[in-house]
Amino acid sequence: MSFQAWMQAIRERTATALDRRLPLSSHAPQRLHEAMRYACLNGGKRLRPILVHAAGEAAGAKPETLDFCAVAVEMIHVYSLVHDDMPCMDDDTLRRGQPTCHVEYDEATALLVGDALQTQAFITLADTPLQPATVNALIRSLAHAAGAGGMAGGQAIDLAAVGQQLDAAQLEQMHILKTGALIRAAIRMGGLAGESLTPEALEQLDRFGKVLGLLFQVVDDILDCTASTDVLGKTAGKDAASDKPTYVSLMGLSGARAFANDLLSQAQQLIAPLNTRANRLQEIALEIVRRTH
Amino acid sequence: MSFQAWMQAIRERTATALDRRLPLSSHAPQRLHEAMRYACLNGGKRLRPILVHAAGEAAGAKPETLDFCAVAVEMIHVYSLVHDDMPCMDDDTLRRGQPTCHVEYDEATALLVGDALQTQAFITLADTPLQPATVNALIRSLAHAAGAGGMAGGQAIDLAAVGQQLDAAQLEQMHILKTGALIRAAIRMGGLAGESLTPEALEQLDRFGKVLGLLFQVVDDILDCTASTDVLGKTAGKDAASDKPTYVSLMGLSGARAFANDLLSQAQQLIAPLNTRANRLQEIALEIVRRTH
Repeated sequence: MSFQAWMQAIRERTATALDRRLPLSSHAPQRLHEAMRYACLNGGKRLRPILVHAAGEAAGAKPETLDFCAVAVEMIHVYSLVHDDMPCMDDDTLRRGQPTCHVEYDEATALLVGDALQTQAFITLADTPLQPATVNALIRSLAHAAGAGGMAGGQAIDLAAVGQQLDAAQLEQMHILKTGALIRAAIRMGGLAGESLTPEALEQLDRFGKVLGLLFQVVDDILDCTASTDVLGKTAGKDAASDKPTYVSLMGLSGARAFANDLLSQAQQLIAPLNTRANRLQEIALEIVRRTH
Repeated sequence: MSFQAWMQAIRERTATALDRRLPLSSHAPQRLHEAMRYACLNGGKRLRPILVHAAGEAAGAKPETLDFCAVAVEMIHVYSLVHDDMPCMDDDTLRRGQPTCHVEYDEATALLVGDALQTQAFITLADTPLQPATVNALIRSLAHAAGAGGMAGGQAIDLAAVGQQLDAAQLEQMHILKTGALIRAAIRMGGLAGESLTPEALEQLDRFGKVLGLLFQVVDDILDCTASTDVLGKTAGKDAASDKPTYVSLMGLSGARAFANDLLSQAQQLIAPLNTRANRLQEIALEIVRRTH
């Protein structure tokens, strides 16, 4: 199967799995359930589910098992977007070309949507059909990536950084937490779900995940600067306009592109020992960078 | 040990355990960590930790193990208070006699505090030193109680109910989800942590938990109507002022008091077969009702 067709197949199976793991909008409280579905089922890129499946394939996990991990990590991602878009945070009105959740519904509903999606992620993960000890390891990985020592902590640093001059190390630390932790967890969870990787191979995957997370953010900053709102499906130039530090503001556009290429090389070297089993991971790293050219 | 001294001892050990399981405010992001601590360590009543320990004592669990469950359920409770107090929800400025989190810090920080506390609850629970299958059961119990089919769903029904006329069954359904689910989960988690109760005894505990949750809400409605802001440590009369349905608005004050007494009898009967092991649970049920007289 071509890489593009494979990614599309993962997107489709993830949409099906999300649909199955979200509460029915015909059941009370209908408005909350409908809004949870609105936030999740809107044709996202599904990068994190794709990473779960790619790493899971490298670790010999079953796709049906990986769906639980993919849904869980995507729900955490979507909850963070819903809360991040709210007026007290980024105050964004457009997401994936559609009105954001608090615009389509209301702020109180958006708050509860994010809260309930986070919980639903852990409900889903707890149902993963694997050994209880593996399920616990999955829950730990996702929770550590999502909480104060991961994504939520990164958001807090991001908030505090508005209007500040960060150096490269501080910016990297913020992004490693804010977006990197969840990307890394997606890859780690795919690896854990195989239940057969050596600790060394899992560690190698984990380091790959860390580099890939950073790569994703550098590319995101480049796109925020170069692409139009129409192409992105979200408001372009938002970070620059709100005086948030980015890799482009720090390194310039060509510096950020060079850094992205350097991270791509690191990622490729880290994953090389896994050989052909990691082909999908190699393709994903290339695909992320391709968007900038 | 007297019941009052026992409750105080649980409050103190819970504060110590919360302190240990919360990120240090000396570590970045400091403001988020400090605000998480502000929200959690302010001398709450700790009803849910007390329920965990009382049920755990009945089930023969170790207090040191129960601390993990107590911290986790309290963090979920506190996160819900922080989000519930925000301007887009109840817009409350006073909680336990102190400024609410978004007043003391800011809305964006309060949003992240709630998000990160929810995650921290699952991190804590995943670390509980019990069999992996028991840990999974604990995580499932808490997640089901907190999510769209529990507390968050109850909040959504509550939002939709403002200005509406609910009947007794609808009001009960809302409260069973909004506050009851977490109280019930606290008792269930204590029971699970013993790793020795029969399914029948666990089921009995669970039914007790359901009745106790409802009892707690009826008493809360009575207090909201009869007590002063000074005594409550939160704004009194808030529900009536915002036209939210309560047991008092539905049944009148004497009707609500009679209903509370009826629920107390049910609770006492349900727990009677557990004999002296359930003494603390009996005392808690009495204590909840005592506040109304």
